[in-house]
Amino acid sequence: MIVLLTLLFTGGATFAQTFSMEDDGKWEIGANTHRGARFPKLHPDGRVWFQFEAPPTAQSVKLHIATEEYDMQKDADGLWNVVIPKTKPGGQIYTFNIDGVHFRDPASLPFYTGGITSELEYPAPDDEYYLRRKDVPRGDVREHYFYSEVEQKFRRAFVYTPAEYEKNVNKRYPVLYLQHGAGESESEWVHAGLMNIILDNLIADGKAVPMIVVMNNDFVYRPGEVPGRMDLAPDWAGNYKDMLFNESIPDIEKYYRTIPDAQHRAMAGLSLGGMLTNQVGLENTDMFAYYGLFSGGLAGDPKTAHGGVMADAEAFNKKVKLIFQSCGSLERPEGMLANIEELKAHGINAVGYVSPDTPHRWMTWRRSFYHFAPLLFK
Amino acid sequence: MIVLLTLLFTGGATFAQTFSMEDDGKWEIGANTHRGARFPKLHPDGRVWFQFEAPPTAQSVKLHIATEEYDMQKDADGLWNVVIPKTKPGGQIYTFNIDGVHFRDPASLPFYTGGITSELEYPAPDDEYYLRRKDVPRGDVREHYFYSEVEQKFRRAFVYTPAEYEKNVNKRYPVLYLQHGAGESESEWVHAGLMNIILDNLIADGKAVPMIVVMNNDFVYRPGEVPGRMDLAPDWAGNYKDMLFNESIPDIEKYYRTIPDAQHRAMAGLSLGGMLTNQVGLENTDMFAYYGLFSGGLAGDPKTAHGGVMADAEAFNKKVKLIFQSCGSLERPEGMLANIEELKAHGINAVGYVSPDTPHRWMTWRRSFYHFAPLLFK
Repeated sequence: MIVLLTLLFTGGATFAQTFSMEDDGKWEIGANTHRGARFPKLHPDGRVWFQFEAPPTAQSVKLHIATEEYDMQKDADGLWNVVIPKTKPGGQIYTFNIDGVHFRDPASLPFYTGGITSELEYPAPDDEYYLRRKDVPRGDVREHYFYSEVEQKFRRAFVYTPAEYEKNVNKRYPVLYLQHGAGESESEWVHAGLMNIILDNLIADGKAVPMIVVMNNDFVYRPGEVPGRMDLAPDWAGNYKDMLFNESIPDIEKYYRTIPDAQHRAMAGLSLGGMLTNQVGLENTDMFAYYGLFSGGLAGDPKTAHGGVMADAEAFNKKVKLIFQSCGSLERPEGMLANIEELKAHGINAVGYVSPDTPHRWMTWRRSFYHFAPLLFK
Repeated sequence: MIVLLTLLFTGGATFAQTFSMEDDGKWEIGANTHRGARFPKLHPDGRVWFQFEAPPTAQSVKLHIATEEYDMQKDADGLWNVVIPKTKPGGQIYTFNIDGVHFRDPASLPFYTGGITSELEYPAPDDEYYLRRKDVPRGDVREHYFYSEVEQKFRRAFVYTPAEYEKNVNKRYPVLYLQHGAGESESEWVHAGLMNIILDNLIADGKAVPMIVVMNNDFVYRPGEVPGRMDLAPDWAGNYKDMLFNESIPDIEKYYRTIPDAQHRAMAGLSLGGMLTNQVGLENTDMFAYYGLFSGGLAGDPKTAHGGVMADAEAFNKKVKLIFQSCGSLERPEGMLANIEELKAHGINAVGYVSPDTPHRWMTWRRSFYHFAPLLFK
């Protein structure tokens, strides 16, 4: 590696270094880049090399990734570069900050977090469960449209159907309704969460039963409503409930070969989607028998929460088979785990999971899904 | 409408106007914007209002859309704006040029043309065939993965299955293999071309037979090959043929309920995808019975082209039922139409179509698909 440090006088009357680096032939293009992209590159030693073309008038360009910020430097071609020693494992959102305004990396495939973002897939020591394996039959993820009377327009859901769904044409399947987080869209459980790969692998290994997974967009607006704080409509949970119960579920049960009863329906979500699961799902235990709250909401005091539906544990357990709660270890899991103990002590089948060393990001939720899905419909 | 023109002295020692505009309440957010986006907006009178946040150091920002270029002006908040009188109908790629470097609009949903782009959906007088109708059953578009030995990695295809595919679980379907253009990806026949909406509508109206449509990515690289000119591998058509014939078609015929013979396979594509149809498809008439070349390639001289396979029209017609060629009227259609006449005179079922007043862009190919699909498998 050779780094040339050159002082030069720029038009903006500032001094800067010129970035230069010898490619030792070991750098490989990142997984989420599109065809023809040359950066970001990953080195086997863990470093990541970013390159970005900013306008020639740019005075300062910084890379923001995970919780880190790095100054970038111009190279001889006027492109801005930085090599970082490492970053957090899993999918990491990053942006380039040009003089205070953030831009996505045009080299990245599009992800949706607070708008269309760029994301680097960084290796993780425990990545095997979300990598595609040649020996595993692959389910399809479908872009599925249905008309919403609540919104007065067509909505798109992503729907996963397991590989065997195509062959067992007379078999019917249970359904998991899976919600995303604030700032995201119906695409992200697949594109950032890799739920389809995880579930394909679990099914192939006999660890999860084949199921359909329906991913709606959390955000539902009635005509005239505009996105408010956090993009939410005034009655965001009520709107979602009307869309889910009156439109999405009936549509799914008409279109796909589902087992259309509560014992074969689950509801789960991350962050805002966990809150929806809490406020829409656990308030309606005639609809779902399995619940997953990932980094979002708690089932609450079993004696009083949700209008006291859990108070009679025996009656509750006839309907609800599982309450799963999870978060990252960096999300202060104590309250979540204490609630799990309360629920268990009350006689409810509650399972808590803490993702080691992860924050409120996708690595927590990939792992949560991996630990949650095997508990469903058994 | 009030436009304030104010001369002011900027840091860059240039004179500029301050953009200001009164919103008359009739502006509506464009169709391809994501949740929470406020621009671009369309006015019923045809105008489009773009707004963009450039770095504060930007000296000049321009909008590029279709073949037009417009200067943008800063408003009092430092945001760059322009209102354009109109643009071309259909999906129009646009970028913001900051001091010579192009950026996509973060307000736009992502499209893929020469990388991740922004696209404005502008109203067209003949748009009915590509709008979703409430009375029309909707097919799904699936993200479908299969392992490629040619590339030594997993590939994604988009696969359309018609709505009735879910109900008629013992019925088998013909398959159209549909290729995209240079600079695009396997997603664009759906996201920019709206082929799923067009085909849903055609099937519901009894104009097209229900079929499966498989959209692969045109670009196939063997290990070690890097994208060259136009992103192409050295033997791009040969690589594609090996992927399509040895991997994609067998995979599709194993995974889906297809009718696995040449009389129930079609191949078509736009631009580069038309060239692939020409070089891979028409060179192998044992594989497909229907061909569509949209703005890309010509079947050629019926006496000599493709090793003389068309020379004996009677023998050829036993295998091949249709050669469809199309382009926009602004693409110099004379050569294409002359070739259609040659083919017809030779006794081959050839159909030519010219899209009125359109260039080498999606409006030509949406219309081409609309005119081509009803001719298949009948």
